[in-house]
Amino acid sequence: MSNRENTISSQCFFEGRILRLRVDKVELEGGKIGEREIVEHPGAVAIVAITQDKKVLLVTQYRKPMEKELMEIPAGKLEKNEIPLACAQRELLEETGYMADNWKELLAVYTSPGFSNERVVIFLAMDLSRTLDFPMDTEEITRLDIIPLGDVIDLIKENKIEDAKTVAGILAAKVFYEDETN
Amino acid sequence: MSNRENTISSQCFFEGRILRLRVDKVELEGGKIGEREIVEHPGAVAIVAITQDKKVLLVTQYRKPMEKELMEIPAGKLEKNEIPLACAQRELLEETGYMADNWKELLAVYTSPGFSNERVVIFLAMDLSRTLDFPMDTEEITRLDIIPLGDVIDLIKENKIEDAKTVAGILAAKVFYEDETN
Repeated sequence: MSNRENTISSQCFFEGRILRLRVDKVELEGGKIGEREIVEHPGAVAIVAITQDKKVLLVTQYRKPMEKELMEIPAGKLEKNEIPLACAQRELLEETGYMADNWKELLAVYTSPGFSNERVVIFLAMDLSRTLDFPMDTEEITRLDIIPLGDVIDLIKENKIEDAKTVAGILAAKVFYEDETN
Repeated sequence: MSNRENTISSQCFFEGRILRLRVDKVELEGGKIGEREIVEHPGAVAIVAITQDKKVLLVTQYRKPMEKELMEIPAGKLEKNEIPLACAQRELLEETGYMADNWKELLAVYTSPGFSNERVVIFLAMDLSRTLDFPMDTEEITRLDIIPLGDVIDLIKENKIEDAKTVAGILAAKVFYEDETN
C-alpha cells in the first residue's frame, strides 16, 4: 500500500534566483484533503576531502538563516545542467584551493524531505594536492581548517559541528572508508 | 575576522502554516550587496529508537517534494513552545506505538544551512516498550520496520536510506553509542 498524494492544485508563491516555493493541495489516504508547503531547490554537492595523513578540510562560513558561522565540509549548489562530480571538483577548488585525484560517491541525501526536494550528493575526495596561489572564495569562506579525522569526530560528538551534511558525510567516511583513509 | 552579513532590508514573500519565506538584502565583506533567500522553519526532532536486541525503528512515509516514499527514523515538527524531548516522546508514540524509558540527546543539526534555519534535535531512545492498541498515525506513516542496526548501516551504504537526518542519526548512534546498544 502506498499513500501516494495526488495533486489537486498547485500554486507558486515565490520564484527567486535559487528557491521556488509552492503550495500543493493534495488528496490523502481515505480521501481527505491536505496542503503541502514545498521549497524547490536545484540540488547541491558536498565533499569530504581527506589528506594522506588523514586530515579533513573544513570551511567556515557565515550562514544568514542562523545568523552565525558554521564549520562545514566544502559544498555548493549545482549550476544548471551541471554534473555533480564536476560541481564538486569546482567547489573544492574554489573553497579550499585543493584538487583531488581520487573521487568516490559517498552518499546522496535529501536534507529536509518534509518540505524541500534539496538533494546533496556527498563525495569522498582523496589524493589531494594544493594548487598554489589559487584565489580562495574569501567572499563566502571565512576560514579553512585542516583537522585530523578523529578530532572532527570529537567535534561532532561535542555538537560543535552542527551541519547535517557534514555530520552525515564525516561519519559515513569513518564507518565505510576508515581503512582506505588510513 | 567574521563575515557577518548585516541586513539592509528584508521582505516576506510567503507565510504559511509551517514555513515563512523572506529575502534579505545583506551587506557582504568589502561592502558588496547580496541577497539571501531564507526559509524559516519551526524546528523538528527525530528519534533513533533502538530495541534491546539492537534493532532500529524505521517508518516509511510519502514525501511530496520528491514524489516518493522514504524510509526514515521517526520525526516531527516542534509545536509552538514545545520542548524537544516532549515532542520526541509524542512523535515516537504517534508514529510507532512505542515508548522509551531511556532518552539521550544524540545530535542537533541544521539540515540546510544555506537557505533554512531548520534545526533537528536527534535523540537516542532505548529501553523501548510497545504500547498495545495505540492507533498509529496511518494517515502519514505507511509502514513500520524494525531492522537490525547492522542491516540499517548496509541500507545507508547502498543508498537505500536517503534522508540526511536518518543517516546522521544512525551513524552517530553506531559511532558514539555502539557499546551501549550492545
